[in-house]
Amino acid sequence: MKVTLVSSTPNPIRLIADAARITHGKSQTYQSDRYYLDLLYKIGHFSVFEHVSFTFFIENISRACSHQLVRFRVGVSFTQRSQRYTNENGFEYTIPPSIQKNEIAKQLFLQKMEDLQQSYAKMIDLGIPKEDARFLLPNATDTSLFMTMNYRELIHAMELRLCKKSQWEIRHLFWYIRGLIWQSDPDLAAFLYPKCFHEGFCREKKPCSLLPILLQKKKSLFTDANL
Amino acid sequence: MKVTLVSSTPNPIRLIADAARITHGKSQTYQSDRYYLDLLYKIGHFSVFEHVSFTFFIENISRACSHQLVRFRVGVSFTQRSQRYTNENGFEYTIPPSIQKNEIAKQLFLQKMEDLQQSYAKMIDLGIPKEDARFLLPNATDTSLFMTMNYRELIHAMELRLCKKSQWEIRHLFWYIRGLIWQSDPDLAAFLYPKCFHEGFCREKKPCSLLPILLQKKKSLFTDANL
Amino acid sequence: MKVTLVSSTPNPIRLIADAARITHGKSQTYQSDRYYLDLLYKIGHFSVFEHVSFTFFIENISRACSHQLVRFRVGVSFTQRSQRYTNENGFEYTIPPSIQKNEIAKQLFLQKMEDLQQSYAKMIDLGIPKEDARFLLPNATDTSLFMTMNYRELIHAMELRLCKKSQWEIRHLFWYIRGLIWQSDPDLAAFLYPKCFHEGFCREKKPCSLLPILLQKKKSLFTDANL
Amino acid sequence: MKVTLVSSTPNPIRLIADAARITHGKSQTYQSDRYYLDLLYKIGHFSVFEHVSFTFFIENISRACSHQLVRFRVGVSFTQRSQRYTNENGFEYTIPPSIQKNEIAKQLFLQKMEDLQQSYAKMIDLGIPKEDARFLLPNATDTSLFMTMNYRELIHAMELRLCKKSQWEIRHLFWYIRGLIWQSDPDLAAFLYPKCFHEGFCREKKPCSLLPILLQKKKSLFTDANL
Repeated sequence: MKVTLVSSTPNPIRLIADAARITHGKSQTYQSDRYYLDLLYKIGHFSVFEHVSFTFFIENISRACSHQLVRFRVGVSFTQRSQRYTNENGFEYTIPPSIQKNEIAKQLFLQKMEDLQQSYAKMIDLGIPKEDARFLLPNATDTSLFMTMNYRELIHAMELRLCKKSQWEIRHLFWYIRGLIWQSDPDLAAFLYPKCFHEGFCREKKPCSLLPILLQKKKSLFTDANL
Repeated sequence: MKVTLVSSTPNPIRLIADAARITHGKSQTYQSDRYYLDLLYKIGHFSVFEHVSFTFFIENISRACSHQLVRFRVGVSFTQRSQRYTNENGFEYTIPPSIQKNEIAKQLFLQKMEDLQQSYAKMIDLGIPKEDARFLLPNATDTSLFMTMNYRELIHAMELRLCKKSQWEIRHLFWYIRGLIWQSDPDLAAFLYPKCFHEGFCREKKPCSLLPILLQKKKSLFTDANL
Repeated sequence: MKVTLVSSTPNPIRLIADAARITHGKSQTYQSDRYYLDLLYKIGHFSVFEHVSFTFFIENISRACSHQLVRFRVGVSFTQRSQRYTNENGFEYTIPPSIQKNEIAKQLFLQKMEDLQQSYAKMIDLGIPKEDARFLLPNATDTSLFMTMNYRELIHAMELRLCKKSQWEIRHLFWYIRGLIWQSDPDLAAFLYPKCFHEGFCREKKPCSLLPILLQKKKSLFTDANL
Repeated sequence: MKVTLVSSTPNPIRLIADAARITHGKSQTYQSDRYYLDLLYKIGHFSVFEHVSFTFFIENISRACSHQLVRFRVGVSFTQRSQRYTNENGFEYTIPPSIQKNEIAKQLFLQKMEDLQQSYAKMIDLGIPKEDARFLLPNATDTSLFMTMNYRELIHAMELRLCKKSQWEIRHLFWYIRGLIWQSDPDLAAFLYPKCFHEGFCREKKPCSLLPILLQKKKSLFTDANL
């Protein structure tokens, strides 16, 4: 898996703050840009966050992962490598950690991948169209895509996908994306957390131990912000 | 592949006509329900069509097909069988016609399916979680899902997916769906056609011969409607 | 203000439960329809709720209210009476309670409404097109519209608009709508509450006293449900 | 009316081309960025255009116009000046050209505006909350808003709103926006036209004379592009 931040809205926090300022007209007392970011988050006025978006180039995730990823529908756009038009001879693939760690399973997995690569090539040789030969390709097959997501949807997607109960590969992907946003806009990354961070409680039957740590982070976030 | 129309908006054309009537207030001359349906289509006022929706239970389509299907994002909702939580032992699968017709390819395909069924079962026996064992499952693996789509999005989806250039399985699926709507509401089915029907021309490099036939149908549709 | 439930998905809870059942395949132990409704709400799997929708005919709300209402964008469709094409001679209007209660303000308000009715009629007489004469019409002017909203978006809209901090007219509207759903599907109405009900805390600077009562309702809801 | 292009995706055509390139994998012959822009438009593959968006600050449009504008729902975000929280004493307003040109109508209009400004101020003095005093404010009252729209939705919105049948103020607004995009990205502006440009025919009962001119422009666009 490799993710690159290809493009993003310039001066995102200034833009969010400027948009927030006009809702109350000119009479509003002037406050810092950061003040508005914190305020909007706190009162749940998330629509203003939609003015900011990020475009990522995501390489070498499995089709299992991409099938789940493209289920996000609002505030997001995808352009994905097509298996209908691309020759997938010698396709790359992703090995799940649980299989990587189990020697017998790993050998079986690698053998099947090689086997399917050969069968796919044979199908193409037999004159089967690429769009039909791909019916053999496993979920492990790697894919690439461009994804543009606005900041509101990012907060929502991170809520779901940073959670420990989320599937490991898509969780990995969103932590990766979060790291890239952290590098470019740490103040925006500061609201990207699992759902429990926002709600203050865990919905899972078997909670992990992360909640108290996250709530502590949230508290210090608002203490710093001096709202 | 099997599709069932599970649920739909009662009296859809009456509802569309009633909604259309209020846009112009009470002063409007009374016209038949069918008149408004035709008028809205003709002037391109499609938003009124969103009040009507259909729910389908779609069984035994390939994951290749479902990956493409769930890319529709607006006016549509999906609930799909999960490969993370379901044991896919002895999974069912879809064979593309081009492979069905080629005896060598077909034998290879069937052999690989059996092979992958066994490998999947072995992974489960080795204690690999279902969500990771599924990395072996091929695109051919069958899935099931509920899909609710409003009538506006249906017109749009049919534009794209009834076209001969569309992939065979999803085209088959949408012709199937069109047939079900034809049975329940023939007047609504009358606007479900490939894009060329609506635009009057073909965007493909190698046009098929369908366009003149479709345009004739459209003409008779409006002659009957007496707009 | 008058709201009519024009149309809704037949057997909504059965449909939601059937959709939920397929996510885990056939192996799932059979549970009651109501069980799945409660479970989906509790674990936050709201997308399944999108299969169910409701269509309302909303009459005599102010344009102030409708301007806010049509800001909902996802899972919702509107068809509204147009002021461009409708002659608004003798338009009806909504009087805010704060003005109703203040005799001086009320007299001023009524006088201005009558005044604007006459001015509008005069504009039309002068040959000004309806779409321009309407520039005189006040926010108080009544409008009518059809609104179709799916159940997921209804939960979201109620979160925002049932809250005491919401503007009185749109809050009134959503309590009205909630009452209609209560009559047709009490089990679905049971999740339609202000945001605090779902989150367990209040985001407002000056909280009202409703929260403890709502949380008690929620508790009894889940005790009854025996999840 | 005043519109400012506040922010936009850097290097939009490069981004669109890069996204288009990955759909067919690495095997694709290299073509220029502009080639992909033209190709995607021609074959109707508009989803790739969603990666590019523009943010505008729109000042001094009427509430009549904004009510219509915020009806766009997909690929667009709005943050608008609120009449609930803003004191609208001495509000600014927009005069329709048809009224501007008719001296009697204009005098009546100006008199009513002054009248309503005074009545609004009096309401506030009487202690009526701003959110209720605004019920007096006319559709002509000016508002301001931030709007972010992606390029795909811009093409769609322009289709509807550049048409001569569209209401004059929102048509003016979108021609203004088109001009700003023309200055920053002329190749993107080249696809922003009324619907007839794209469809090749006019849906109106009384067509204007623009269609042949637009189709000529389209033809030369593709001749230049050398697809």
